[in-house]
Amino acid sequence: MIKKLSADETSKLLAELEHWQLTADSCAILRSFKFADFNEAFGFMTRVAIKAQEMDHHPEWSNVYNKVDITLTTHAAKGLTDRDITLAKFIDSIT
Amino acid sequence: MIKKLSADETSKLLAELEHWQLTADSCAILRSFKFADFNEAFGFMTRVAIKAQEMDHHPEWSNVYNKVDITLTTHAAKGLTDRDITLAKFIDSIT
Repeated sequence: MIKKLSADETSKLLAELEHWQLTADSCAILRSFKFADFNEAFGFMTRVAIKAQEMDHHPEWSNVYNKVDITLTTHAAKGLTDRDITLAKFIDSIT
Repeated sequence: MIKKLSADETSKLLAELEHWQLTADSCAILRSFKFADFNEAFGFMTRVAIKAQEMDHHPEWSNVYNKVDITLTTHAAKGLTDRDITLAKFIDSIT
């Protein structure tokens, strides 16, 4: 069973993720990205997709041309877990 | 300038696209897809992305694990054009 982060753990870890926003219910984090064009946006999505598959932890996301919106949450834990933080850090590392 | 489809052209072409829904304002068409898993869903998205780039006509879409929702519209024409129908037919041909 994947352990949901406590409120303390969440705020500590979120401090390391300055570009992500916590949702009002504290169950997910969000970040929006803007790229030069669709090629760059989908190239980025492909890198995230391969990492997500490797982690068996997938984003909820949408794309319109050069924009990508990502939501990370862990459904099995009904909230945020270490997996979301790991994936967020990977995403930040490639942008 | 890309020509917006007339109401008659839209209904004629939509009859060929049985799985797509016209939005209430008739400016876009939508279709939802469900795949076996994320690998299949993102593989599908990649094929659509490559075609979209080739056409220089891109979908608005979202993905959650094995589900993909696609909206097609032509912003430059403020409505549906032949490009949307061509992309929709390509998408249908690979599903």
